[in-house]
Amino acid sequence: VTEPEPSAARPAAPVRVGLLGCGNVGAALVGLVETRREAIAARSGVDLEITRVAVRSLTRDRGVKLADGVLTTDAAAVVADPEVDVVVEVIGGIEPARELILDAIAAGKPVITANKELLANHGAELAAAADEKGVDLLFEAAVAGGIPIIRPLRESLAGEDVTRVMGIVNGTTNFILTRMTEEGTTYAEALAEAQSLGYAERDPTADVEGYDAGAKAAIIASLAFGTRVVAGDVYHEGISSITAADIASAASLDHVIKLLAVCERLEGPDGAEVAVRVHPAMVPVQHPLAGVRESFNAVFVEGTAVGDLMFYGRGAGGDPTGSAVLGDLVDAAVNLHKGAHATIGMGGRAQIRPIDDQQSPFYLSIDVVDRPGVLRSIAEVFERHGVSIRSLEQEGIGDAARIVMITHRAREADLQATVTDLRDLPTVHRVGSIIRVVGAEG
Amino acid sequence: VTEPEPSAARPAAPVRVGLLGCGNVGAALVGLVETRREAIAARSGVDLEITRVAVRSLTRDRGVKLADGVLTTDAAAVVADPEVDVVVEVIGGIEPARELILDAIAAGKPVITANKELLANHGAELAAAADEKGVDLLFEAAVAGGIPIIRPLRESLAGEDVTRVMGIVNGTTNFILTRMTEEGTTYAEALAEAQSLGYAERDPTADVEGYDAGAKAAIIASLAFGTRVVAGDVYHEGISSITAADIASAASLDHVIKLLAVCERLEGPDGAEVAVRVHPAMVPVQHPLAGVRESFNAVFVEGTAVGDLMFYGRGAGGDPTGSAVLGDLVDAAVNLHKGAHATIGMGGRAQIRPIDDQQSPFYLSIDVVDRPGVLRSIAEVFERHGVSIRSLEQEGIGDAARIVMITHRAREADLQATVTDLRDLPTVHRVGSIIRVVGAEG
Repeated sequence: VTEPEPSAARPAAPVRVGLLGCGNVGAALVGLVETRREAIAARSGVDLEITRVAVRSLTRDRGVKLADGVLTTDAAAVVADPEVDVVVEVIGGIEPARELILDAIAAGKPVITANKELLANHGAELAAAADEKGVDLLFEAAVAGGIPIIRPLRESLAGEDVTRVMGIVNGTTNFILTRMTEEGTTYAEALAEAQSLGYAERDPTADVEGYDAGAKAAIIASLAFGTRVVAGDVYHEGISSITAADIASAASLDHVIKLLAVCERLEGPDGAEVAVRVHPAMVPVQHPLAGVRESFNAVFVEGTAVGDLMFYGRGAGGDPTGSAVLGDLVDAAVNLHKGAHATIGMGGRAQIRPIDDQQSPFYLSIDVVDRPGVLRSIAEVFERHGVSIRSLEQEGIGDAARIVMITHRAREADLQATVTDLRDLPTVHRVGSIIRVVGAEG
Repeated sequence: VTEPEPSAARPAAPVRVGLLGCGNVGAALVGLVETRREAIAARSGVDLEITRVAVRSLTRDRGVKLADGVLTTDAAAVVADPEVDVVVEVIGGIEPARELILDAIAAGKPVITANKELLANHGAELAAAADEKGVDLLFEAAVAGGIPIIRPLRESLAGEDVTRVMGIVNGTTNFILTRMTEEGTTYAEALAEAQSLGYAERDPTADVEGYDAGAKAAIIASLAFGTRVVAGDVYHEGISSITAADIASAASLDHVIKLLAVCERLEGPDGAEVAVRVHPAMVPVQHPLAGVRESFNAVFVEGTAVGDLMFYGRGAGGDPTGSAVLGDLVDAAVNLHKGAHATIGMGGRAQIRPIDDQQSPFYLSIDVVDRPGVLRSIAEVFERHGVSIRSLEQEGIGDAARIVMITHRAREADLQATVTDLRDLPTVHRVGSIIRVVGAEG
């Protein structure tokens, strides 16, 4: 071979990065580009350089070293700067992120974004713009932080018939549920600990009520099934009503409670439908998702040929998320040198199955009067709505009793109708938690 | 936008696949291409067609439908056929696979291979040929079957400083160890069960002695550290000497025994070194690798920024492995349309740290005479070789006693010298199993 190794003979020109936002993730990225620059150049043949950084305040200390003139408050100028080859967006939120990304794409610049909210609401618009212009739009960091899940779904599983994806994609709620499970603390105590450790915001709504996981579920479903799902399509329930008693009940049934994002591809009367929901679920202790503890994330993928897969790691934090952005950045830079780009191939709008028509096995606890005939009247209600009981245990508490049961797979609407009628029974004091169950799909 | 969608307006010409080998994986691939062809075309814009299939026997029933004239015994003719755009090699072994792949690359045809043995021995030669010619050489299926691990290591973690990878990459041995752990069976019983279920070969040497895992370790280390490691660099010990007593000891210490492929990047006196070994290891029950049961595989990756990652799934079997080949095939076909290709970027030859200089904590069991002063004489031997004891338990068995201990991180050579001297002590009946420990790196 007489041809010289191209990267050795003639070092490629630096790929100049314009960074929009320099918070937790942005600052981590600046540090990583600095420490990894030589290793990346040696390995991938691209020399990364952070040329411009747009921030809201020029005076805040971000703990990163940047040359004079790099920082600016004018994000649009960074996007338009001819000295910027690639744009990284870590501002978050819908606007101005959406407009800035569209401007970058229009200028022919690849974009890397970690913005789940934007992708879950306007992903199709951005993907169409990127495909049309022939530039990369990469977003590994938007779902499950440092875990490579977007690229496997887009590329490795491109030929696979994915039927279901279940993810623990919110570290805050997984931390809270782990504490409740392992230490026996209440929800309020575990939330307070998460807040004191910086895992939960002062207003934890976005995490604990499932909004954050819902946005990620929309992105996962879109990629897994090649069809467009938006945040508004996702039914969600949070963990704020999970009690220590629920956790103990789950344990007695050899299950743990996890907040899951569940994406299913189903056959409907008019073709393929997609069901997407976020809710607490009982997971058998032997299921790989049950072992995902603390603030870790994991995405469990079920495919017809490939079987079960799981991707596990840190779902948040500056460094893990920065690492995911950096992987995308290297990819985009290599593509830029080659004149290539990845295709997203987002399909048409998904047919969403309404939550009422989705199916799952359910766990219920029912407090009743301890009197003969009570169980028969309860069984009659289940029968009336076509909900079949899989297993049942009854325990006395003074002159009352608690019935704990798991149903076979049932329609949500039928289960809700059952619960409404149970509440009307004079012998029923209270229907407690209703929790969907994974792995009992009989 | 006036430009028409290219794939919609003008369906791309089929990408014609030449398949070398039609055993388990090849037959699965033929089936998958048939059932998934339309879905792949709709999503990725490539139409895959299996044009030629080279086999050893034309008469054997493979359970697949192939048009007349597709089957041939002439593999070289398939590679050379101008009607073949992409070559898939699932023959296995070094020759003629190596020559066929080099011929395909020389002809400018992308190659997908599942051949771990070939890659672990001649990967650098193949990668250099592919990079020079500018064609894809993809091999997701060569390590851990259906689990996407090659693409994440090559692309997602391209910027990451990976420090260690530990993998359960052999399903046969994981099945055997799971049975021994969960059912209390002996190694021989579990092996017989694995053989009767078709998980183990009649001659199980390649699996149970760690050769198979060693080849995969070489490939993983090469990609994780960007430096060339070959099968011969990998130290390996198998599981055939693991006893039910070892499994019970591990359980009493809240550990499970797994056959691990361990790849570490270390600093040596002359720069970076790579340590690669395959051996049974005690893994703490709370470690994510401990929950990987039955014939499942998993690869655990530790990086400076990204933290801990794990990739879990089916490591073998026609369908899972075929799914991985199909993912690569779609990728190669899309690249072919774009005139692009992936770069492997294999670095120079790795500096391998010899096994004697590698370090680990160790578990040992020592049968001794139950007499005062015995422990002191044993402690003296450890001290002489600089091996520090982390924890120790002693239990009497009649007039003998068993000492079970875990050391701090120690050099292999020092540990071996310690064991040699222990065996010379008159008070030591027997030094039993010596098992490396994960997660006690104090």
